[in-house]
Amino acid sequence: MTEQVPGKVDMNKLVSLCKRRGFIFPSSEIYGGLGACYDYGPLGVELKNNVKKAWWKAAVQERDDMVGLDASILMHPQTWVASGHVEGFADPLVECKQCHQRWRADHIKDGKCPACGGELTEPRMFNLMFKTFVGPVEDEASVVYLRPETAQGIFVNFQNVLNSTRRKLPFGIAQMGKSFRNEITTGNFIFRMREFEQMEIEYFVKPGTDEQWFKHWVEQRFNWYTNLGIKKENLRLRQHAKDELAHYARDCYDIEYLFPIGWSELEGIANRTDFDLKQHSKYSGKDLSYFDEETKEHIIPYVIEPSAGVDRSVLAFLADSYDEERDKEGLRMILRLHYALAPIKAAVLPLSRNEKLLPLSKEIYNTLRSCWMVQYDDAQSIGRRYRRQDEIGTPFCITIDFQSLEDRQVTVRERDKMRQIRMPIEVLKATLEAKLCGEPLDVLPPGGKKWLGFE
Amino acid sequence: MTEQVPGKVDMNKLVSLCKRRGFIFPSSEIYGGLGACYDYGPLGVELKNNVKKAWWKAAVQERDDMVGLDASILMHPQTWVASGHVEGFADPLVECKQCHQRWRADHIKDGKCPACGGELTEPRMFNLMFKTFVGPVEDEASVVYLRPETAQGIFVNFQNVLNSTRRKLPFGIAQMGKSFRNEITTGNFIFRMREFEQMEIEYFVKPGTDEQWFKHWVEQRFNWYTNLGIKKENLRLRQHAKDELAHYARDCYDIEYLFPIGWSELEGIANRTDFDLKQHSKYSGKDLSYFDEETKEHIIPYVIEPSAGVDRSVLAFLADSYDEERDKEGLRMILRLHYALAPIKAAVLPLSRNEKLLPLSKEIYNTLRSCWMVQYDDAQSIGRRYRRQDEIGTPFCITIDFQSLEDRQVTVRERDKMRQIRMPIEVLKATLEAKLCGEPLDVLPPGGKKWLGFE
Repeated sequence: MTEQVPGKVDMNKLVSLCKRRGFIFPSSEIYGGLGACYDYGPLGVELKNNVKKAWWKAAVQERDDMVGLDASILMHPQTWVASGHVEGFADPLVECKQCHQRWRADHIKDGKCPACGGELTEPRMFNLMFKTFVGPVEDEASVVYLRPETAQGIFVNFQNVLNSTRRKLPFGIAQMGKSFRNEITTGNFIFRMREFEQMEIEYFVKPGTDEQWFKHWVEQRFNWYTNLGIKKENLRLRQHAKDELAHYARDCYDIEYLFPIGWSELEGIANRTDFDLKQHSKYSGKDLSYFDEETKEHIIPYVIEPSAGVDRSVLAFLADSYDEERDKEGLRMILRLHYALAPIKAAVLPLSRNEKLLPLSKEIYNTLRSCWMVQYDDAQSIGRRYRRQDEIGTPFCITIDFQSLEDRQVTVRERDKMRQIRMPIEVLKATLEAKLCGEPLDVLPPGGKKWLGFE
Repeated sequence: MTEQVPGKVDMNKLVSLCKRRGFIFPSSEIYGGLGACYDYGPLGVELKNNVKKAWWKAAVQERDDMVGLDASILMHPQTWVASGHVEGFADPLVECKQCHQRWRADHIKDGKCPACGGELTEPRMFNLMFKTFVGPVEDEASVVYLRPETAQGIFVNFQNVLNSTRRKLPFGIAQMGKSFRNEITTGNFIFRMREFEQMEIEYFVKPGTDEQWFKHWVEQRFNWYTNLGIKKENLRLRQHAKDELAHYARDCYDIEYLFPIGWSELEGIANRTDFDLKQHSKYSGKDLSYFDEETKEHIIPYVIEPSAGVDRSVLAFLADSYDEERDKEGLRMILRLHYALAPIKAAVLPLSRNEKLLPLSKEIYNTLRSCWMVQYDDAQSIGRRYRRQDEIGTPFCITIDFQSLEDRQVTVRERDKMRQIRMPIEVLKATLEAKLCGEPLDVLPPGGKKWLGFE
């Protein structure tokens, strides 16, 4: 861990919570771990999938002008020649002659090994793509790479998508999936991993309209994070300086988040111009132009690329939602995750393990889990069970007591408001649905609005 | 394509439909493709994600005894020593001395090259794991493998999951994700790919209860396919013969599907005994036992493994739902996909491009797509648009005509029943929800049951 921003949750505390409650484990931990790889546990996989679902909903489902794609990780090696990755996707590497640790030369400050102060070798360029071999012979002809970005899977499918969907400009293609980078320096938990997941959009526009669409996407993507609960003061935009821009980019903004390790990139939005389609057209010999029915011209579209990291988003959502409260029972840890992201939407908690409470509790549990991830917990005191749910960000706790058997009402406790309201079981599902999905209130059954403070 | 089962859809027709409508494209096609890799297009990614969602819902969300996991593709290489893959995950390879094509020796019938009849080399064992190198030095010490199965990611996390979820036996861990096998012979479209996706469960039980749980899972998994619309006559169970069992397995059933290429494995359910946990315990030196609170004993659980292929499932759902009807307008192609799997749930079709129809059509479109993937189509005749939707399996087409502007009613056409019913816009969403989700009928608004034939 490199530094710690005052006022933000301590990174080690987050790592520890993640392991203890089953969000994130070090990969292959029983064998000592594999550097910069992590596994998502039972709660982590739900959180990560919810982040991906929220992105897909905003990027594809709710837009007129977007379609999805899921290209393979292994691609034809010529893809990476055309994209410039074989030639240029490399970092300068130096090695300490004394302790043999390796470093990125551009991260070295005084020319000496940061670990032992030893002398360093001359820098050599090290390509960050993982390579492997297809077929039984391990020679140059059989080399393929694990994709270092999902973007190129979109560009090589541009004509296939165009032909199969009859789209007109402007339109975009969205993709989520694993990418791999053989980083020299890794670390800071899931912030920089060798195996990571991306959520990328390539949005194709007519040249000349690219600046306006670039602004649109910077705004859209910034709002996506705040709509899902990230505090505005923890987000900022940073425009790349001219000398910092990638060779293909005309303009680029980073959306930065105030991680526990400091302000760092969460997402980049780049104007990639017509670079990629032109390169792939040149290297494949295929026509990747778009026929404009209005002007009767063939054009190569410009591309705006919002490129987000799934794992970094997960880390940001965790760090931003982490909260502590001290009351008479001690320290209360709460993940104030947006309801759409919370791994468990509701917990069903019979007041005790008394057998009489079992049938009704299970009935409610079964009804709710046909819609959402729901936990059933009857171990230990109700107070401890509330805390266990707070710690993993569960929005609603539903308690069944002996009175419930008489009046078929249950107590619903809302994580953030800490109030407890009694409501009839028959309105429970519709009320939770309205709260969880932000549904318009008229879907609530008669009398439902008053539950949980809608009225 | 090796063969063609009479009465089943022609594989080439399916491949062609998949490309034309944007379900599945050959990977990196503009560069001539990459052997046995495919990309999922705009409709394919929705179908595949729906298959995965349906599996997750059945395997995790709706069960008491299951949790999810998402482990990394790159794992500590010792994992594959312990699992037996480094030693034994190999096929016998022969090469033709004349045309240099490579074959699996166990697939050769008469000792000659199936392509040219030439003489073959002696067989040598070829390990099917893809390998790559972590860090800048390509030597034995830096070799890691792309996982050939997701299962081992579950075993190495057994204790982490146990500690973080406080589970008691029996319980299971479910995982979906990519795996990679450097197959010598590939083909039959997405049936056997080098990069593919798995849906695997490792279900941990007390020794002695494994046979009963094995039966449970064979039944559960068989029913999963039929519940999602696969015809029973196209599925069968096949028990592995004793000499066919993997070295770790006590028993194994394949669920086979009658693919266009013949009966082939869709999913395997194996009783892996305590082999994997014992091996990992031995190689890692870590205690992977379970403490039984009743008997006060430490035991190594037995494991039942239902292991399904995502891509094979997609192929089976496509092949099984493919249908043709000939009427006066010619041939009608229909994908009778289960509603839960259909990539697009509804199409909003204004009768014509007349501007007056636009506001109401867009209003309906916007309402529905907040819940589901919905298409808007106003190009060409309404008949052709119905056919386009039939071909991709859309369950509902909603037509807005000039009468709709007066009475706020629309025409709903159901794919399979081919009847068209007029209904008020205000009940549209709730009615579709009831049909799509199989909700109990009492969620329908007053009068709603009569729509679409509920009454």
